[in-house]
Amino acid sequence: MPPQKTFQHLTDASAYQKLIKQYDVWLFDCDGVLWSGDDLIPGAKEVLEKLRGWGKEIVFVTNNASKSRKEILKKFVKLGVRADETEIFSSSYAAAVYLKKVLNFPSDRKVYVIGMEGIEEELDAEGIQHCGGTAKEDNVFLPPLDFSTLQDDKAIDPSVGAVMCGFDMHLSYIKLAKAYKHLTRPGADGPAKAGEVGGGCHFILTNDDSTFPARGGPWPGAGSLSSPLLFATKRQPTIIGKPHQHMLDTILAAKHFERSKAIFVGDRLDTDIDFANRGDIASLMVLTGISTRAEIEGDGAEIVPDYLVESLGDLDQVKEL
Amino acid sequence: MPPQKTFQHLTDASAYQKLIKQYDVWLFDCDGVLWSGDDLIPGAKEVLEKLRGWGKEIVFVTNNASKSRKEILKKFVKLGVRADETEIFSSSYAAAVYLKKVLNFPSDRKVYVIGMEGIEEELDAEGIQHCGGTAKEDNVFLPPLDFSTLQDDKAIDPSVGAVMCGFDMHLSYIKLAKAYKHLTRPGADGPAKAGEVGGGCHFILTNDDSTFPARGGPWPGAGSLSSPLLFATKRQPTIIGKPHQHMLDTILAAKHFERSKAIFVGDRLDTDIDFANRGDIASLMVLTGISTRAEIEGDGAEIVPDYLVESLGDLDQVKEL
Repeated sequence: MPPQKTFQHLTDASAYQKLIKQYDVWLFDCDGVLWSGDDLIPGAKEVLEKLRGWGKEIVFVTNNASKSRKEILKKFVKLGVRADETEIFSSSYAAAVYLKKVLNFPSDRKVYVIGMEGIEEELDAEGIQHCGGTAKEDNVFLPPLDFSTLQDDKAIDPSVGAVMCGFDMHLSYIKLAKAYKHLTRPGADGPAKAGEVGGGCHFILTNDDSTFPARGGPWPGAGSLSSPLLFATKRQPTIIGKPHQHMLDTILAAKHFERSKAIFVGDRLDTDIDFANRGDIASLMVLTGISTRAEIEGDGAEIVPDYLVESLGDLDQVKEL
Repeated sequence: MPPQKTFQHLTDASAYQKLIKQYDVWLFDCDGVLWSGDDLIPGAKEVLEKLRGWGKEIVFVTNNASKSRKEILKKFVKLGVRADETEIFSSSYAAAVYLKKVLNFPSDRKVYVIGMEGIEEELDAEGIQHCGGTAKEDNVFLPPLDFSTLQDDKAIDPSVGAVMCGFDMHLSYIKLAKAYKHLTRPGADGPAKAGEVGGGCHFILTNDDSTFPARGGPWPGAGSLSSPLLFATKRQPTIIGKPHQHMLDTILAAKHFERSKAIFVGDRLDTDIDFANRGDIASLMVLTGISTRAEIEGDGAEIVPDYLVESLGDLDQVKEL
């Protein structure tokens, strides 16, 4: 067994200063790091401004696929945190980029969406056709035990070459049944080809968070909502969001930085810190969100960050670099 | 490794006659054995009549939880197959009996239902209170990303002491979110107690079939629809239907027969034949449904019946006992 990874608990301004000097690219999870629900973490905004002033590159990384980058940007504006759309990487954006750039998804094929506007807007931005999602005909309850809407290939659109599944508050049996049919048609395991009818159908999840935080939560998340498709089809999807590495690939393709010069700041071990560890970039854990210090101190701790601070706001103690 | 189980392929009237003589209680899966969709399997009805004439006990066992026994009986009547309601055991009925008789579910507690009329009617028949299911307020699409309907404990009914999940064509995020909240509240892992508010909340699935056959199918089944709850809560539910043994316990409690005198006739290895094998009752596989002969002949065959015939109708060759 390899020796267990240890973390450095940073507690004073000189340690914070050394950390800031060491890394040129600062990647941030948002909820639990910059804000908690609608409340800013004290000092976080000021730290971001200082990092910008010292020439650091800033990147925001969120698994939230329900909103497009444009919509996520509105939250930054609302809370008075400076951000540019090109600094924001959501799992819906990364999923659309993955489809376009990595899979070379043909322009004559469609994506069947289980998800909300955030996914549809990012697919639109990449020029990828889609159906399902918020389309009116799939956001209905079918009459109980009446399968006529689904029978006789009415469930199948042969131009569909991928199923993309994310968080969807209008999850319906009709969407699950249609997605299932596309994912299990003959040849669905292969790649979608241009000019083909039927055949290959990719299976992509924006993220696989079992739950997500929101007022009154946690609530069942995108990973939970997609589990019927995994259970019914026995297929393994490609998962884009943290801790999976397609998200990092998308960021690196856009930002071209050295991994050794980058640090990821997050509050969740199973998404944020695991994402950084798997991607060979440094990780800084904060205690203003989900995960606790006890989880990284025990003998059995499986996911451990490189650094720990109580709050991102603590770094505001650094007055100059 | 134990030697692989072998099956007897019965092919003539004398072999069928010997089989019929050996067993006094004949349990039948329905779809794929007695009928296929809306078409009777040739000879099946005649065989049932002969078995009755020779004094055999007849039992019908189905995982279908979407209909109550009364509704399932209508299918028998429609196809002209004689049956009595007391001979029919559905997973919805067995689940209601399990709750009442095995768990002694308190009369002042409620079951939160993800499912259709079949479950509600069987709970009503056992005098068990329920909510969710077909209740109007939970059969709606919430406004996207508006959690106000679920916040501030609106999702929680403290009188709920069990979540029961089965096939539901009106699965909705609101139902999944409410079920999740009940299953994860403090103390939910324990038993539901009378006169208590909150606390224990049982987790019961009528069945865990990943798909089910219907015209145009297979379609995602009850096991698929319940998987978000397993994924989000990390809880292991009690599963009632075939191949799980609570179904057999329910039948034995009502019918009091010797296992050694009973035989189960089914078309599916993973539900029917596994159910019989686990329950130490003999099994007869027919090839008029889902599973194929190739699946029981290979070296790696894991589930093997005791006997094989092409069709239940073949037994009609037996003229007298």
